[in-house]
Amino acid sequence: MNAISKLMRPASVAVIGASADAAKTSGRPVAYLRKHSFDGDIYPVNPRYDSIDGLPCYPDVASLPHAPDVGIVLLGAERAHVAVRDLANRGTSAAIVLASGYAEIGEEGAKRQAQLIEAAGSMRLLGPNTIGLVNLTDSITLSASGALETDTFTVGGIGVVSQSGGILGSLLSRAAASGIGLSKLVSTSNEADLDMADFVDYLVDDGSTSVVALYMEGLRHPERFRRAALRAAAAGKPVVVFKIGRSESGARSAVSHTGALAGSDRMYDALFSQIGVIRAQRFSDLLDIPHALATRRKLSGRRVAILTSTGGAGTLVTDSLGMVNFETPHPDEATAAKLRALQTGDHAVLDRNPIDVTLAGLQPALLRGAIGTLLDSPTYDAVVVIVGSSGLAMPDLMANAIRDSLPGRDKPVMAFVSPHAPEITRLLNEQAVPAFPSPESVTSALAAMWQHGEYLQRAVSLDKQHSEADVNVSDLPAGSLNEAQAKELFARFGVTAVRERVVTNANEATSAARELGDKVVLKLLSNTITHKSDVGGVAVGVTADSIGARLNRMRDDVETATGVSANAFLVQEMVAGGTELILGLHRDPLGIALLLGMGGVTAELFKDTTMRLLSTEVPLSRADALAMIHELKTWPLLDGYRGRPRADIDALVSAIVAFARMAVQLGGRIVEAEINPIFVLPAGQGVRAADGVAVLASEPHDE
Amino acid sequence: MNAISKLMRPASVAVIGASADAAKTSGRPVAYLRKHSFDGDIYPVNPRYDSIDGLPCYPDVASLPHAPDVGIVLLGAERAHVAVRDLANRGTSAAIVLASGYAEIGEEGAKRQAQLIEAAGSMRLLGPNTIGLVNLTDSITLSASGALETDTFTVGGIGVVSQSGGILGSLLSRAAASGIGLSKLVSTSNEADLDMADFVDYLVDDGSTSVVALYMEGLRHPERFRRAALRAAAAGKPVVVFKIGRSESGARSAVSHTGALAGSDRMYDALFSQIGVIRAQRFSDLLDIPHALATRRKLSGRRVAILTSTGGAGTLVTDSLGMVNFETPHPDEATAAKLRALQTGDHAVLDRNPIDVTLAGLQPALLRGAIGTLLDSPTYDAVVVIVGSSGLAMPDLMANAIRDSLPGRDKPVMAFVSPHAPEITRLLNEQAVPAFPSPESVTSALAAMWQHGEYLQRAVSLDKQHSEADVNVSDLPAGSLNEAQAKELFARFGVTAVRERVVTNANEATSAARELGDKVVLKLLSNTITHKSDVGGVAVGVTADSIGARLNRMRDDVETATGVSANAFLVQEMVAGGTELILGLHRDPLGIALLLGMGGVTAELFKDTTMRLLSTEVPLSRADALAMIHELKTWPLLDGYRGRPRADIDALVSAIVAFARMAVQLGGRIVEAEINPIFVLPAGQGVRAADGVAVLASEPHDE
Repeated sequence: MNAISKLMRPASVAVIGASADAAKTSGRPVAYLRKHSFDGDIYPVNPRYDSIDGLPCYPDVASLPHAPDVGIVLLGAERAHVAVRDLANRGTSAAIVLASGYAEIGEEGAKRQAQLIEAAGSMRLLGPNTIGLVNLTDSITLSASGALETDTFTVGGIGVVSQSGGILGSLLSRAAASGIGLSKLVSTSNEADLDMADFVDYLVDDGSTSVVALYMEGLRHPERFRRAALRAAAAGKPVVVFKIGRSESGARSAVSHTGALAGSDRMYDALFSQIGVIRAQRFSDLLDIPHALATRRKLSGRRVAILTSTGGAGTLVTDSLGMVNFETPHPDEATAAKLRALQTGDHAVLDRNPIDVTLAGLQPALLRGAIGTLLDSPTYDAVVVIVGSSGLAMPDLMANAIRDSLPGRDKPVMAFVSPHAPEITRLLNEQAVPAFPSPESVTSALAAMWQHGEYLQRAVSLDKQHSEADVNVSDLPAGSLNEAQAKELFARFGVTAVRERVVTNANEATSAARELGDKVVLKLLSNTITHKSDVGGVAVGVTADSIGARLNRMRDDVETATGVSANAFLVQEMVAGGTELILGLHRDPLGIALLLGMGGVTAELFKDTTMRLLSTEVPLSRADALAMIHELKTWPLLDGYRGRPRADIDALVSAIVAFARMAVQLGGRIVEAEINPIFVLPAGQGVRAADGVAVLASEPHDE
Repeated sequence: MNAISKLMRPASVAVIGASADAAKTSGRPVAYLRKHSFDGDIYPVNPRYDSIDGLPCYPDVASLPHAPDVGIVLLGAERAHVAVRDLANRGTSAAIVLASGYAEIGEEGAKRQAQLIEAAGSMRLLGPNTIGLVNLTDSITLSASGALETDTFTVGGIGVVSQSGGILGSLLSRAAASGIGLSKLVSTSNEADLDMADFVDYLVDDGSTSVVALYMEGLRHPERFRRAALRAAAAGKPVVVFKIGRSESGARSAVSHTGALAGSDRMYDALFSQIGVIRAQRFSDLLDIPHALATRRKLSGRRVAILTSTGGAGTLVTDSLGMVNFETPHPDEATAAKLRALQTGDHAVLDRNPIDVTLAGLQPALLRGAIGTLLDSPTYDAVVVIVGSSGLAMPDLMANAIRDSLPGRDKPVMAFVSPHAPEITRLLNEQAVPAFPSPESVTSALAAMWQHGEYLQRAVSLDKQHSEADVNVSDLPAGSLNEAQAKELFARFGVTAVRERVVTNANEATSAARELGDKVVLKLLSNTITHKSDVGGVAVGVTADSIGARLNRMRDDVETATGVSANAFLVQEMVAGGTELILGLHRDPLGIALLLGMGGVTAELFKDTTMRLLSTEVPLSRADALAMIHELKTWPLLDGYRGRPRADIDALVSAIVAFARMAVQLGGRIVEAEINPIFVLPAGQGVRAADGVAVLASEPHDE
């Protein structure tokens, strides 16, 4: 048994700094361990008491009869490291440090935290600044959370990891009230040692956990988290996350547009979507979605039957579902006939959806029949049952009818409880029928089930590509490449650039212009000046006759603006008839992000971009690249919208894949790179990189 | 006292078809009237009983000792009209008909409903298919809603009108559970007679109601609703609506783009926004937002202080507020100093926001001091207090501290209750401190308070315009105008069109082209063919030399495509350097809608449009028109984005106002009209209508 397993299920627990006053925070852990029937040994440690609540109390860690599996340290930040060192010396597997006053308060606290880590040595550490953990499966509460005042909890399959202790308490208390079953809850907080990824890993292997719910503030080790999440996916355990930080402005200073367009919360979105982690949008979703997924029922389509005895609430759910494109089709004729055969009364509405059995239909046999009929109907992929105010007087009517209809059928069944009816809600939830007090929760839960199914299919159909031979990049200098060097680099990987010539004077420019066509583009070529147009370094539509004079004027303008004497220029062909896009790479704390965006001022105003985080293990596939293109809201512009020529999508896919391959091969050396614009020409004519930026580090960048 | 007042507060109630079995729907109204202590006379009517629950029971309406103020009719649809006729004959003020089986089930039911209306004569009718009404202010329950099983309700200032009976029960039950105070609840359902507008009107005059909450499926009389809502605004009573139908596809067949772009739910959005009705986005908002507004506290800015004793929950609220651009600034130095003086303990975080007093700060005097300090701080416009799991053991701590801090201060104070803590929530709500179990509700409530304040300011600053003299339109034909006629009509109101000539043959076209510039546009001119370009009826960039031949070819193409022989064409100047927009009018069930949209394929893909419903009473002002322009997401394209010339906004505003004025003056005659595109030229150069559609009715269109 490794240290984390021992931490989650210790046979003995020492509580350092335990108080005999159960009303104090330091009195709670011992009180809660006993209240919730911990069956191992509890060793309170406090020199001020001989015993606490009948248990012998020890003056210090050294006096303990043997090394505890876990030590809960309740001392303040100024003394906690001493207890931690003592526990480590005794051979304790793991310590939980509750004190605050560490890295979360700034530099001084960060020093204390370093001292704490040093004191722990090879012993594992949860916290500091944590509220601890709760293992409901085995009735083990290693926590001071006030939520443990609750007498009973529903034990179930949802494992929770929270970077906030307060949120752990909130989820524990809310789940208990609504009968949603949890397995384990851990608050990782400062993550001086053990972090979210460690516990996701643990929960993947935990037989009692079928779904993982995460409250996340930010990832300290994205790569470890990615691996843990992929393990969860492989084990068939959905991971649901509520991540705060959505309102961060996210703009950064960067040479390219890619950095500014990205913004770190969108990076998390990209990461989650790529590794199959479902993002909860509202706080209540963080319990509701896992609860729905924990039923293990299969949503294989988007058609939902709504069974009601009251009009309004059914409409409410229909409307909410419709907003995210679920369908609520009318019953097919055979289904309607079966419903009619149940004789639900004259005014029942059985050929429309919501299917309204009216108050007269609120009878056990009738409801069982209706629910069964809808579950068996080929027209529906899921059934939502409405509990109306009339149900208040008959709390178990609906719960029993649904329970009896479930066996042998695997479509999802959920309930929307329209009045305030906590008893009915709890009854349904405990019978594994997700029951929600808001129509939006029904929608979130079904949407998440759909998203999870989609991910599983996508994960299965991953087209494994054999990696191509490496391109030689050993000759590349460090720092900013100039435009010509950047495009030459991109071309090595297969991204075609516009035709161009490097020139140094008017004569060379004139002959280059003759070669490249009627009209050309003249640009300053520089490794240091990246915003060429701001300093007069770009001229468009220049003729061969005038280019010499134009070059001399540009040299003067640039020198006036920057003080730098320009000695190299680019003469480029003009590209006509293509659609402008942006293709960029950006190094983010979460990894290297690939960004595809539509160009042109209007699309730019709408920030019409999409992203992927690149992985060194799984190369970006052609299917991934095509999916990115389809995600652009202005995708129709590439697809023959309003009589436009259809763009060369195949070539664009190749360019995206090539750019991603370049990023992965350059690995730690890439800082950022961007093609802006890349022109996508009509089908069969390829793409052209018309400008390029690349910044390389000399040594591999720290991962 | 008018009939509606008598309906809401009757001195006597007859219950036709009352059952002695209180478990039956027909037994409920009498049982609930007694349970909730109705102090007037109750007359059960049923030939099968002599008495019900000790009350004498009458065999029929004719036998009643005198005419009741209100009759509740519990008979089925096949017999209800008989009772309604009897009640009307006795001189009853209003009847409530609960039966279903009327217009909601189709044609046959609609006939029954007509029969019912006829039977009521001059007596007012609530329903049919209604669950009735509940007057909590006066303890009068004229309803069969199962939600009345609840023993006690919180009486308060929120009046509810619902087009669904089930939703009435849901809101009643939810409000009771969380201590949110209601005044009156009415379910209007089929609205055979009395409708939502009638009850909004009633609630505006009701001294016990300060906020109106509406559950709406659709408006049968938009103009009446508009007037009632404006009366509410004038009386300082906010109106909050949850309207379903958001997922309607809304696309319609129409000659112009405007109709298709509009979609009726967006029309409701436009209506609500123009008359100051606040739209609730989630179902729970329908109680939460009115509850916050009912406190009558003033939100005069967007800066929010968050006071917490637990990190995570504070962050949750901060993040949610940030998503809709509320700010959570750190305390100013003076405020931080005052907080420090409270001595909240070593690890309290008092110079950041959330302000974290930690568990040590959970003491009455300290909390009072902190809340008062934050309310008095010039840095904050509102305070959100977090109730954490530690509050579970001290349910009235936070409620009392907040209550004591409120007097003499008028900034909003709300609470986010992080764990499941219904007792704390109820306590806070009953003390007029809105307490919400979700961070999103805090945000919705504050956002709605802000929106309401904004509307009040806007309503005050309305620039009343004296109406201009009418334009002569008596000569206009009915039906589709051709493009030249349409633009001539628009020009009468002041919208400048491109220069153009109507021609009938190659020679006339050639001389028109010579007059109008280097290159011109040649178009088919027709009253019947509206999609000219689909039939080869548009040619752009034609020279004077080639236009003759081009015209002849166009005539052939059009004849081939349509079978119609073209005998008129337009030669138009080409417009260069402007930005394309769409300006349209569309007749919707809610009124005449004016639509402004950005043109060009990219903006079209993003449906970058905005709308206003036009009123015959208040003309669209220049400020309104400018606000519409600013609402376009691509507004920067008109405002000098990326070195573009700034567009002639002043001329665009004039064109919008002129188009709106035309719509109002044409009134019932306008079916639809559109300028697509209208070019907005650089500042000082005006606008040009480059194409026009107008469809007029011969007789004023039905309102």
